Amino acid sequence: MSTRTPVATTETRQYHTTHRQEFITITKDVEDFIAKSGVETGTVTIQSHHTTASIWVNEDEKNLIGPKDKLGYTHDLSRVLDRFADPEEEYGHNDVRDVNNPQGKRDTHLCTPDSCGVVHECINGHAHAQAMILTSSVTMIIEAGKLVKGIWQQIMLVELDHDRERTVTFLAQGLGK
Amino acid sequence: MSTRTPVATTETRQYHTTHRQEFITITKDVEDFIAKSGVETGTVTIQSHHTTASIWVNEDEKNLIGPKDKLGYTHDLSRVLDRFADPEEEYGHNDVRDVNNPQGKRDTHLCTPDSCGVVHECINGHAHAQAMILTSSVTMIIEAGKLVKGIWQQIMLVELDHDRERTVTFLAQGLGK
Amino acid sequence: MSTRTPVATTETRQYHTTHRQEFITITKDVEDFIAKSGVETGTVTIQSHHTTASIWVNEDEKNLIGPKDKLGYTHDLSRVLDRFADPEEEYGHNDVRDVNNPQGKRDTHLCTPDSCGVVHECINGHAHAQAMILTSSVTMIIEAGKLVKGIWQQIMLVELDHDRERTVTFLAQGLGK
Repeated sequence: MSTRTPVATTETRQYHTTHRQEFITITKDVEDFIAKSGVETGTVTIQSHHTTASIWVNEDEKNLIGPKDKLGYTHDLSRVLDRFADPEEEYGHNDVRDVNNPQGKRDTHLCTPDSCGVVHECINGHAHAQAMILTSSVTMIIEAGKLVKGIWQQIMLVELDHDRERTVTFLAQGLGK
Repeated sequence: MSTRTPVATTETRQYHTTHRQEFITITKDVEDFIAKSGVETGTVTIQSHHTTASIWVNEDEKNLIGPKDKLGYTHDLSRVLDRFADPEEEYGHNDVRDVNNPQGKRDTHLCTPDSCGVVHECINGHAHAQAMILTSSVTMIIEAGKLVKGIWQQIMLVELDHDRERTVTFLAQGLGK
Repeated sequence: MSTRTPVATTETRQYHTTHRQEFITITKDVEDFIAKSGVETGTVTIQSHHTTASIWVNEDEKNLIGPKDKLGYTHDLSRVLDRFADPEEEYGHNDVRDVNNPQGKRDTHLCTPDSCGVVHECINGHAHAQAMILTSSVTMIIEAGKLVKGIWQQIMLVELDHDRERTVTFLAQGLGK
């Protein structure tokens, strides 16, 4: 038997996103979690609970990721993502059947109609399509008790829908000391 | 030493896909496997054995994922994937050298020619390209013996080629009770 | 307690890439690493340290992945990736502020100016965008001491920027004999 202790531990965090295509750097939260976990050699898995908010590992340079209101122009990755799946395009997913749209294609949603029978908050076909590009979970390596990452690598939560409350679970597993 | 038992176990399943861009929800198979595995805290990895069939975690809403024959129209993600890499486009990968096409660019394939020297079933350059977007394997978190997943998250096997027999391996690892 | 030994071990390798959109097959390096690791049942994680070099599992057929100088034509995936995010397009990320471009949008980079105050080597907005499609790390399954992979699956390091020195870490974890 190994004399090193097997470890597996989780932590769940909430993030409040403030706008579409916000990229929130969460590297420090992941690194703090790894330090607490006691894993010396192993992996950390970062998993979004959502279908329109993804996890991405890349550079958090402002021209790439925004936000637009500080830049005064659209960030590069917003342009590329919206070209792939335009929010203004027609999606069957967005054609929600309600009192205003009795022939709507989408009748399977669980979004609750308001008191007027109108369904809000489901117009996000583009966000599901963009979520094909990015991934809902990422697994990275822990070595010598620290996250392995290159000089430019940051872990980001990417909001593909509008401002929302988002839940992310971290899991560290491997061998301790 | 931990008093919890380290666990690692696998299971391999076959799926029969029936058409291009079929999205098959396999969440229950993964959850049943986790329950049998005895892992309380850890990860499950779901790996396709294929280069034109991927694993994706998202919402299985019919307007997003089809199938077309029940909808009567093309599902949203089919349109987006085919715009990224059109099946009708020319791919060097599809320019298979055989008796009908002696100058074909592709001479490295292992597809078996039929008795007439014609190679079938290899015309899938678009499916390899679309497989850049989706991933061949996904790792998710197990906590308290259950798959961590948000309310809309389903695990799907995505057929990017035509109807095929597909193989998927599940692995659960972590700590048991 | 399990009588099988928990294992977690890492190895870091350097790769020299020679051109943009080079796909380097590293499957044998990963398989050699797994054999040395002693893991019988578990996972291998392959992680790039970079934001413009990714890991992809797919078929290494020459018409899909090149290189162009041997093919005499652009490989299929180069065309698809560049259509998604064209190197010739304008990116704020590339608008580097230096002596030649004092109004450049990008002032947050750490690229070192040369003795003339000109910043080189940062014109890679397209490569960051293409890195949204591919992923920086991949986790695959180890079963019976061997990498689980389908007949066509190869593990590739994908250079999205120009020729560079690249670092990749492998981690195997799970249960030994």
